[in-house]
Amino acid sequence: MKKLAWFPEALFNSYAQVFFSNNKWFGIILLALTFVDFNVGIHGLIAVSTALFTGYFLGLHEFNVRQGYYGFNSLLVGIGLSIYFQTGPLLLGLVIISGMLTVFVALAFEGILGKYGLPFLSIPFILVIWILRLASRQFEALGLSERGVYILNDLYLLGGKFLVNMYEWWNQIPLHTSIKAYLLSLGAILFQQNIFSGILASIGLLIYSRIGFFLSIFGFYIAYFFYQLLGVPFTEVSYSYIGFNYILIAIALGGYFIIPNKSTYLSLLFIIPITAVVGISLQQVFNLFFLPIHAFPFNVIVLLYLYGLKFRIDNRIGLSTIFWQQQSPEKNLYNFINYQERFGKESPIPIYLPFYGEWSVTQGHNGAYTHKDDWKHAWDFEIKDEQGKTFRNEGDFASDYYCFDKNVLAPADGIVETLVEDIEDNTIGTRNLEKNWGNSIVIKHSEFLYSKLSHLKKGSILPKIGDKISKGDIIGKVGNSGNSAFPHLHFQLQATPFIGSKTIDYPISDFWMRFQGKE
Amino acid sequence: MKKLAWFPEALFNSYAQVFFSNNKWFGIILLALTFVDFNVGIHGLIAVSTALFTGYFLGLHEFNVRQGYYGFNSLLVGIGLSIYFQTGPLLLGLVIISGMLTVFVALAFEGILGKYGLPFLSIPFILVIWILRLASRQFEALGLSERGVYILNDLYLLGGKFLVNMYEWWNQIPLHTSIKAYLLSLGAILFQQNIFSGILASIGLLIYSRIGFFLSIFGFYIAYFFYQLLGVPFTEVSYSYIGFNYILIAIALGGYFIIPNKSTYLSLLFIIPITAVVGISLQQVFNLFFLPIHAFPFNVIVLLYLYGLKFRIDNRIGLSTIFWQQQSPEKNLYNFINYQERFGKESPIPIYLPFYGEWSVTQGHNGAYTHKDDWKHAWDFEIKDEQGKTFRNEGDFASDYYCFDKNVLAPADGIVETLVEDIEDNTIGTRNLEKNWGNSIVIKHSEFLYSKLSHLKKGSILPKIGDKISKGDIIGKVGNSGNSAFPHLHFQLQATPFIGSKTIDYPISDFWMRFQGKE
Amino acid sequence: MKKLAWFPEALFNSYAQVFFSNNKWFGIILLALTFVDFNVGIHGLIAVSTALFTGYFLGLHEFNVRQGYYGFNSLLVGIGLSIYFQTGPLLLGLVIISGMLTVFVALAFEGILGKYGLPFLSIPFILVIWILRLASRQFEALGLSERGVYILNDLYLLGGKFLVNMYEWWNQIPLHTSIKAYLLSLGAILFQQNIFSGILASIGLLIYSRIGFFLSIFGFYIAYFFYQLLGVPFTEVSYSYIGFNYILIAIALGGYFIIPNKSTYLSLLFIIPITAVVGISLQQVFNLFFLPIHAFPFNVIVLLYLYGLKFRIDNRIGLSTIFWQQQSPEKNLYNFINYQERFGKESPIPIYLPFYGEWSVTQGHNGAYTHKDDWKHAWDFEIKDEQGKTFRNEGDFASDYYCFDKNVLAPADGIVETLVEDIEDNTIGTRNLEKNWGNSIVIKHSEFLYSKLSHLKKGSILPKIGDKISKGDIIGKVGNSGNSAFPHLHFQLQATPFIGSKTIDYPISDFWMRFQGKE
Repeated sequence: MKKLAWFPEALFNSYAQVFFSNNKWFGIILLALTFVDFNVGIHGLIAVSTALFTGYFLGLHEFNVRQGYYGFNSLLVGIGLSIYFQTGPLLLGLVIISGMLTVFVALAFEGILGKYGLPFLSIPFILVIWILRLASRQFEALGLSERGVYILNDLYLLGGKFLVNMYEWWNQIPLHTSIKAYLLSLGAILFQQNIFSGILASIGLLIYSRIGFFLSIFGFYIAYFFYQLLGVPFTEVSYSYIGFNYILIAIALGGYFIIPNKSTYLSLLFIIPITAVVGISLQQVFNLFFLPIHAFPFNVIVLLYLYGLKFRIDNRIGLSTIFWQQQSPEKNLYNFINYQERFGKESPIPIYLPFYGEWSVTQGHNGAYTHKDDWKHAWDFEIKDEQGKTFRNEGDFASDYYCFDKNVLAPADGIVETLVEDIEDNTIGTRNLEKNWGNSIVIKHSEFLYSKLSHLKKGSILPKIGDKISKGDIIGKVGNSGNSAFPHLHFQLQATPFIGSKTIDYPISDFWMRFQGKE
Repeated sequence: MKKLAWFPEALFNSYAQVFFSNNKWFGIILLALTFVDFNVGIHGLIAVSTALFTGYFLGLHEFNVRQGYYGFNSLLVGIGLSIYFQTGPLLLGLVIISGMLTVFVALAFEGILGKYGLPFLSIPFILVIWILRLASRQFEALGLSERGVYILNDLYLLGGKFLVNMYEWWNQIPLHTSIKAYLLSLGAILFQQNIFSGILASIGLLIYSRIGFFLSIFGFYIAYFFYQLLGVPFTEVSYSYIGFNYILIAIALGGYFIIPNKSTYLSLLFIIPITAVVGISLQQVFNLFFLPIHAFPFNVIVLLYLYGLKFRIDNRIGLSTIFWQQQSPEKNLYNFINYQERFGKESPIPIYLPFYGEWSVTQGHNGAYTHKDDWKHAWDFEIKDEQGKTFRNEGDFASDYYCFDKNVLAPADGIVETLVEDIEDNTIGTRNLEKNWGNSIVIKHSEFLYSKLSHLKKGSILPKIGDKISKGDIIGKVGNSGNSAFPHLHFQLQATPFIGSKTIDYPISDFWMRFQGKE
Repeated sequence: MKKLAWFPEALFNSYAQVFFSNNKWFGIILLALTFVDFNVGIHGLIAVSTALFTGYFLGLHEFNVRQGYYGFNSLLVGIGLSIYFQTGPLLLGLVIISGMLTVFVALAFEGILGKYGLPFLSIPFILVIWILRLASRQFEALGLSERGVYILNDLYLLGGKFLVNMYEWWNQIPLHTSIKAYLLSLGAILFQQNIFSGILASIGLLIYSRIGFFLSIFGFYIAYFFYQLLGVPFTEVSYSYIGFNYILIAIALGGYFIIPNKSTYLSLLFIIPITAVVGISLQQVFNLFFLPIHAFPFNVIVLLYLYGLKFRIDNRIGLSTIFWQQQSPEKNLYNFINYQERFGKESPIPIYLPFYGEWSVTQGHNGAYTHKDDWKHAWDFEIKDEQGKTFRNEGDFASDYYCFDKNVLAPADGIVETLVEDIEDNTIGTRNLEKNWGNSIVIKHSEFLYSKLSHLKKGSILPKIGDKISKGDIIGKVGNSGNSAFPHLHFQLQATPFIGSKTIDYPISDFWMRFQGKE
């Protein structure tokens, strides 16, 4: 069963991603919570599993499957369907094909939005649930669920009369209509439109992030007062069908995708009313089809805003988009401040040369031999003597080469993400076309910034996967493994953590430019 | 009339493309069949002709016009309009402007979907017919047709009482409701929703491809049982408005775009129900506008599926997309098996160097002189002596150059697609800027993989257009024609068969890598 | 207030852009005209200002903000809202957030359509006004305006009983229904659906461009007769809600985006009916949402047509798209004819080398050092002696370098767009990383074609911003300013007028190819 080793991580991530997190334990807790209503839990689990296995059998990259992006959208579809429809083999079948469809829709949006550097958020979920709800009107064999009855039964089974009483007590607390609407909206994120679930969710949010909790209230009340101002008809129940959009957008654009600060909070004073107008407008259109709009306004405005910010050439008012997603507003803020203190400016992360002394680039960007296309932004380094030779004697042995066995350094701070270390070094003049990159190390420096050092000497790599390393740490020695006929060091920067990732073109720090000695 | 030499081929292809074919005779038969109903035939012909001449006068590439992609969509629009509306000058005018509009819509989708490596299928037809049907509600001068009466008249004119009787007999056969629905669905592909047309179409399909015929039934019945299971209201007539989607998608994803095998058939068990859900869902939306959805679900799912498969890094379950479209499932399968037996793996097709011995690359990828941008993945080859010189004596004559008059070889198996062979060789130091590529040969190795060899010696090219040639065949000699001041061989790989096509970056086989002697 | 120096120009351009113009005085007149109805004027002004300051505070490129593209869409939104709704603080708030939203929508379309080389026209306005009108149905506190009453009041305040009488007299002239519809349609472009405004607008149009005026009538009547032919229900009032589409499209595709000639006029005979069909069709869809379609058909057809023309490989029928937008059909035509007479072919503009004699390219396209990525299509030039050295003596002083202080020439006719001339030349071996490009000049040769010459000698630049210069004019001398350690000339072509613009790959004229002496 080693082949399925990826499954648990992918499963838990699929749950945690609902709240933008990739914390394993958070995922496990959420999985457990969905089983408060057994039918919801089981159908959610089936939907996630379907999506994950669809990804696996299709042959998608395991990394992407493990991150839970596809699974999280399918999870929401599965939960949604189990809440709308009666359980039974028909629902089961629909959940399975919906899980598959969600993966393909997610891939399409990954491809399309990816071209614009944007995430696909929960768009696949929304599209698929719309499709299913429209289609299901023709499914006469599929009954609508009567969930109102079941939840009390389920609670009774879980915690007896006490839990049922508590549930009902909470739901009857004489709260201000706006507070009720806030709690209902929070619960509605996971289709649990009741006060009790709202309170649980708000406690969870407070634990996860105080900034996030503050933002949820801040965003909600901006929208609430805007509604009052404009005289939009308001009941807490109907409002909660759209209200979570304001909560989600406040968290997303107030602290998750943007570093939280005064400008960010101020910007919400405009973003939330815009979201409200767009949301109310879209609702008018979807009413015609008797469809709820779910988090569609949230998706639209987040994409529009993040994309618009990319057109800036000047960060005049201090809206800094996240460079390295830390999965919580607090951590993002801390990381950002920390980074600024150390490097004095926001980005990019400076990358240094991975060796001491003076080496020669024997194959640069868009090299004549192998650095083409996807690997065009890579360098091969060797050491040359005054005659320009890279070896002593006849060059028949690896040890004749000046660069062989020299120390390879970490080009910047980071975490070891991927390692290959069991490949024999080639004898001079031969190459290993099976294992192209030979012994290699991939280091994560930030979100979307990894460096790879390849053709290292077998047995020379010092750190292990997950190790934190600092700029200049010795991480291995130059070797002759992989598709390498002569010892040399292959160095490249890439946006993904794989051995076979494409290169990106990233500026090497000033030192490098000066080292070149010429413009 | 030499200028219109492209027209007949373009015309017949426009008909054959309805069934994904580019067989001239199949096109002629289909053209004839549309004339069973004269009005349908003539309006279809006018629509196609309009599209083709629009393409011609606009100045689109003749190759694309000839393939029939634009014409085929216009054909469907023309047929559709002639079935919905009364004949007359108004209809004629509408057919003409619809034919033009279809070309522009097709170009837009060619551009947009082309960026994702996807075909535009019948999307232009569907969009334009929707536009016309919506608009026509305001056209009070345009009457609806009363086709039911005409068809019998037309049949009577064609084959007398016998044909009319046969038509009516067929339509009254006591068939199982599902068989009737199958036949109506088949006929509906060409707007002929009657049993008789369905039987004709099924016979045609059986002749064209047994796999295709099997798939049509397989796909249809998966959908049929899925409908029964879900209790979707079913009458054979209403079903046939959407049923051909399942037939088309089974053929497309079961054998036309994907190599038919067990995995492919199995995958239909999921794809067809997904298509059904999406189709029923879309129908709900379009009902609001009183529009039929035509083959829209088919288009959506084919694009979604083919695009999703592009994200695979591992063909774990054996879904192999077509590398070289043979225009029928059988031929695709045969070609695929044949290919695997010979080369042991699916792709890519190995390409070898087009000469014997050791040559030098005097201008490689992204060359300093002319190999830029669209032609950046090209090589110039010359022969050098030990001093690095490319010629003997003073180099004043073509014959002084070592590479001049040397044999040029086919770099892989293929078919000669394009030839230029009437261009004089230049005297040394001059160049022909009018005929940039000089004498050239373009060889098709597979769908989207062509090689071009240029600047050949006048009169040296051996094969003719359409000739099948094998790897290593001598095809001509190095010359000095075109934009070439000194004899050399220009070699490039490209995705389209034109002399002026852009290059693609395609790996040259192992031999080439080793020849380079270094990574 | 120097920081706001860009504001007046941006403001006036935002008004002028409604009629595709960037004439300051035209903008001022239009601004004044909107104040005929004070409420319309003030809300329009607020909307534009909001958009401009949103752009400014976001940190968008000042150039784009100044062009008025974002402002013009917001202006229309502001005017539209002030006409539909009652004045008051609520409307004010909506106008402000709509102005912001319009900027983000415009950026999104700039990014998306920009990838296809297409302008975003008035799509942002249309989308935002739709959103607002849909949403406002829920805004119970926001009243609808009763504009019919106000306009007479406003006129009375402006010009007393005389103006009111004139207004009413005009509106009651017994004109042919088609002329009334034409005038109402013209007025409707700025939401002024009355005869009086239509007459004013037609006079303005006649002054702006006789070709434009002719096209407006030509386009209008093609549509009018097409409506009659098809029996589309016609009243001048309802027609004017869509009629301006035909006027706008005739101007846009008859003379503004395409050089006006016989083919262009002829093409309108097909384009206008196509636009009518698409327009009537879209109206059916939007009726369901009780939304007007505004200029949506115009936008759709212009984009579809301009994009389709890009697929041509042969301009067989003489439809020449504008290469250098002159902001009026007459000027476009004149410029085009003038250009053809001088250069004998349509495009591209020939660019010559910016110096006398023989220089060496020391860093070409995709250079090893700094010419990467966005700057990959650039050249560095130096002068070398027979030994390949670029300097005499030891090369310790700038004056030792052969190229230093040599004349730099204008590579083609153009206008000086950007200048940097106050940067000290570096001593040999040092470089100024703060001011990367040093003293530089950017020359506009045509729309989307600029050349930049950099690292010039301080004080050597002769022309001033706005100067017209001819090919071969001496414009400065080679220096050593900016990121330059040794004197050399940096030369690049770019599509935008900024010092930091990306390069484009544009062919240098024949001379250059021959100069290279080899393919």
